[in-house]
Amino acid sequence: MTSEASRRSSERIYQELKQHIQSSMKPGAPLPSSRSLVEQHQASPNTIQKVVSRLMQEGLVVSRAGRGVFVAEKPQITSSTADFGWQSVLLGASPALQQDFQSLYTPAPAGVIPLGSGYLDASLQPGALLAAAMQRASRRPLIWDRISPEGLEPLRNWFAQKLGVQAQNTLITSGAQTALSTVFSVLAHSEGLPVLVESPCHLGTLAILRSCGMKPIPVPADHAGMRPDLLEQLLQSTSARILTCQPTYQNPTGLCWPEQRRKDILALCKKHGVLIVEDGATQDLGLDGPPPPNLVKMAPEQVVHVYSLTKPVAAGLRIAAIAATGPVLQRLRTALVVDDLFVTGVMQEAALELVTSAQWSRHLKTVQGTLKERRDVLVGQVQVHLPNWKIQHVPTGGFYIWVKLPEDQDDAVFARLALQHGVQVSAGHAWFPAESEGPHLRLSYAGASLEQIRQGVTTLADLGSKK
Amino acid sequence: MTSEASRRSSERIYQELKQHIQSSMKPGAPLPSSRSLVEQHQASPNTIQKVVSRLMQEGLVVSRAGRGVFVAEKPQITSSTADFGWQSVLLGASPALQQDFQSLYTPAPAGVIPLGSGYLDASLQPGALLAAAMQRASRRPLIWDRISPEGLEPLRNWFAQKLGVQAQNTLITSGAQTALSTVFSVLAHSEGLPVLVESPCHLGTLAILRSCGMKPIPVPADHAGMRPDLLEQLLQSTSARILTCQPTYQNPTGLCWPEQRRKDILALCKKHGVLIVEDGATQDLGLDGPPPPNLVKMAPEQVVHVYSLTKPVAAGLRIAAIAATGPVLQRLRTALVVDDLFVTGVMQEAALELVTSAQWSRHLKTVQGTLKERRDVLVGQVQVHLPNWKIQHVPTGGFYIWVKLPEDQDDAVFARLALQHGVQVSAGHAWFPAESEGPHLRLSYAGASLEQIRQGVTTLADLGSKK
Repeated sequence: MTSEASRRSSERIYQELKQHIQSSMKPGAPLPSSRSLVEQHQASPNTIQKVVSRLMQEGLVVSRAGRGVFVAEKPQITSSTADFGWQSVLLGASPALQQDFQSLYTPAPAGVIPLGSGYLDASLQPGALLAAAMQRASRRPLIWDRISPEGLEPLRNWFAQKLGVQAQNTLITSGAQTALSTVFSVLAHSEGLPVLVESPCHLGTLAILRSCGMKPIPVPADHAGMRPDLLEQLLQSTSARILTCQPTYQNPTGLCWPEQRRKDILALCKKHGVLIVEDGATQDLGLDGPPPPNLVKMAPEQVVHVYSLTKPVAAGLRIAAIAATGPVLQRLRTALVVDDLFVTGVMQEAALELVTSAQWSRHLKTVQGTLKERRDVLVGQVQVHLPNWKIQHVPTGGFYIWVKLPEDQDDAVFARLALQHGVQVSAGHAWFPAESEGPHLRLSYAGASLEQIRQGVTTLADLGSKK
Repeated sequence: MTSEASRRSSERIYQELKQHIQSSMKPGAPLPSSRSLVEQHQASPNTIQKVVSRLMQEGLVVSRAGRGVFVAEKPQITSSTADFGWQSVLLGASPALQQDFQSLYTPAPAGVIPLGSGYLDASLQPGALLAAAMQRASRRPLIWDRISPEGLEPLRNWFAQKLGVQAQNTLITSGAQTALSTVFSVLAHSEGLPVLVESPCHLGTLAILRSCGMKPIPVPADHAGMRPDLLEQLLQSTSARILTCQPTYQNPTGLCWPEQRRKDILALCKKHGVLIVEDGATQDLGLDGPPPPNLVKMAPEQVVHVYSLTKPVAAGLRIAAIAATGPVLQRLRTALVVDDLFVTGVMQEAALELVTSAQWSRHLKTVQGTLKERRDVLVGQVQVHLPNWKIQHVPTGGFYIWVKLPEDQDDAVFARLALQHGVQVSAGHAWFPAESEGPHLRLSYAGASLEQIRQGVTTLADLGSKK
């Protein structure tokens, strides 16, 4: 039988069986055995198994250990009029509204041009390398056993070397968001603890701070990053002793602090006993040469650093590392065990295979080259078609440009309108820790092709000029 | 060249290159190109690549995007005399001591008989099935993209059908520990919130409660589980309105509540507006027939249920589901996004392949059969060789037996002694939410072969009789 004929036959059997189950079988009744289905439908055991799996995945039948396959019971319907008031009383006040965060982190509908994406699209992901790495990793002996909560030693070595710290000062986590939420949950020892943040600030970090009951205090930036003069004022006027930042290709602004600015901020933090949480998620994505050294390399005992493979590889490779020292490192180790136990060995082995493969540096170079092209096209298209939108800063790395809209626009309204017209962008107001500094959009070139970027900006320009 | 000769040659080149790097090359110096290494060592490009990967994994060399491979820089050494006092001040009081928890969750050293293990050993893991599932999953198109934070729809369907709830009431997490820590972090809205727990109680849950600043209040049990009379007293005398339990094969006691007890506890909780967090991690591991229905199936709006594939499959398959309703479900959804964004698609697809495969029910049957044999041998051996140890209850499922030692023994001292003699067991005192009810051990038959169980108990008997 050709594979097309086989597919058609499998579809026909599926439809017949499904109809039979729904019209004539009772919940709990046994499905005929595979052997009798094979005979009855004149199909191969393989085809029958595929059909049964599909019915199982749809929840129509269920397999019971050693006893066969049965028609699924209807789940108890939770009445939509059930009274959940007692649950609300139990939960108490809601943490600060996080709708913006949630909507941002829900994937865009299919067919939409993703100018809001925080991840590389499939064309830039090293798919074949990842598949090969997973395949090798999943065949290793004992790969499914529990491993050390700190992570695989060779992978910690690799991260340590990459960051210029010692391997014993690193911990592996499942992605940067998990890393950051663990770090802040450890630091949040009292309600309303102030944390100094950039303004605008990474939305995921803001959501974590609020969910930990922390109070984000904005520190304004100039073209070279966080302003030391205003930081010093805030260190004198507030009790804040935790600061978080992305000195390298900040999300959403794309700013990259020059080396001197890094030194100035570090010196201030050292003087005042401030712990810095440095988010280095996009440090591999320099488009015009490598960035200055990380803060953690310059002052390892002052800085907790988070580095992730998600941004240079794919959203689904949820492997990140934390670098820390002293009592903070010890607290983090315990917190990671309590929160997650450990990160599955198979993913860590696959990540290790990937980053130590001969193709790794070629992959990074390809990504950097393509992103550079996309950035240039996006910047050019906005300048040509939307001359009254102001690009705050042409980024030298990362995924984003940050544009200021004319003052009479509402960025949230515009973003909703754009989505209705098939273009996803991120409204700027959600990225501000306090009041927004006028209407902004974050436009991403991570997930869209050159053609999509051109189309997307044309659509945005149409909508922008209608206003 | 034979593969053995190739291995020897690769080892020789590795040793030569390593010595050369360490004795004659400066940090930052470029490694000769792969081509010249191939010529110099008369080896295949593949062999050279393996050697360079190994040096990279050991942190001796590092690859820079598009520029080649370089001798690694020495990381900045954090002085062991560095003053971390400022960090301690910043962190504030330490959460309740969690040493017991950490040591339990660190894998046993190689060669030790694992009578303390909480996971199936490799001989019971469906290794070939998992490898095949991973391989198929990792070749799917778009598999590395971001997916919905709630989880893959067909996997949610499967979990929902399994638990007798609706798919829209389920969320996927990376393992039961992540699920439980998310649940309690959402419920812990004020410091010192009381939570009713079994006594003894799952150690991982105790660690989470303490790290969330919650106060575990023990509810004593009889042979049929948590005592309704004492629960009612506590509901009247305290303000506790959250209860957590493992009604099915409790860890550590192995108790399984009969259906009537489940109804009694549910009725009390409903009457007093108590939310139940039901941990159903080992529900698939019935050794003498299936267990009574889960609490969540009997009262979905009253219960948050956690179910995990880790226990019936392998520690490394970190895929679990939460079932919840109403405002609690909404809070959980947001918390999962903030804490972890989403669980990688490739693991969810692999889990789905596994549980809907034709071999799944055969796998469960094999595991149940082998565990039953192991349980019988462990119980028999303890009864024969350690007649003054009292087995509290012969479990009808799960991984553990819970034994009471003679009153003059110290369980912590005994567990340390046993480990020194090559047998890992879990000391009982750590499992009590309040004062321990005398010296106990938890002995596991999940990770040890019949031969290891016999050897292990013989060693324990030698140590026990010396006392």
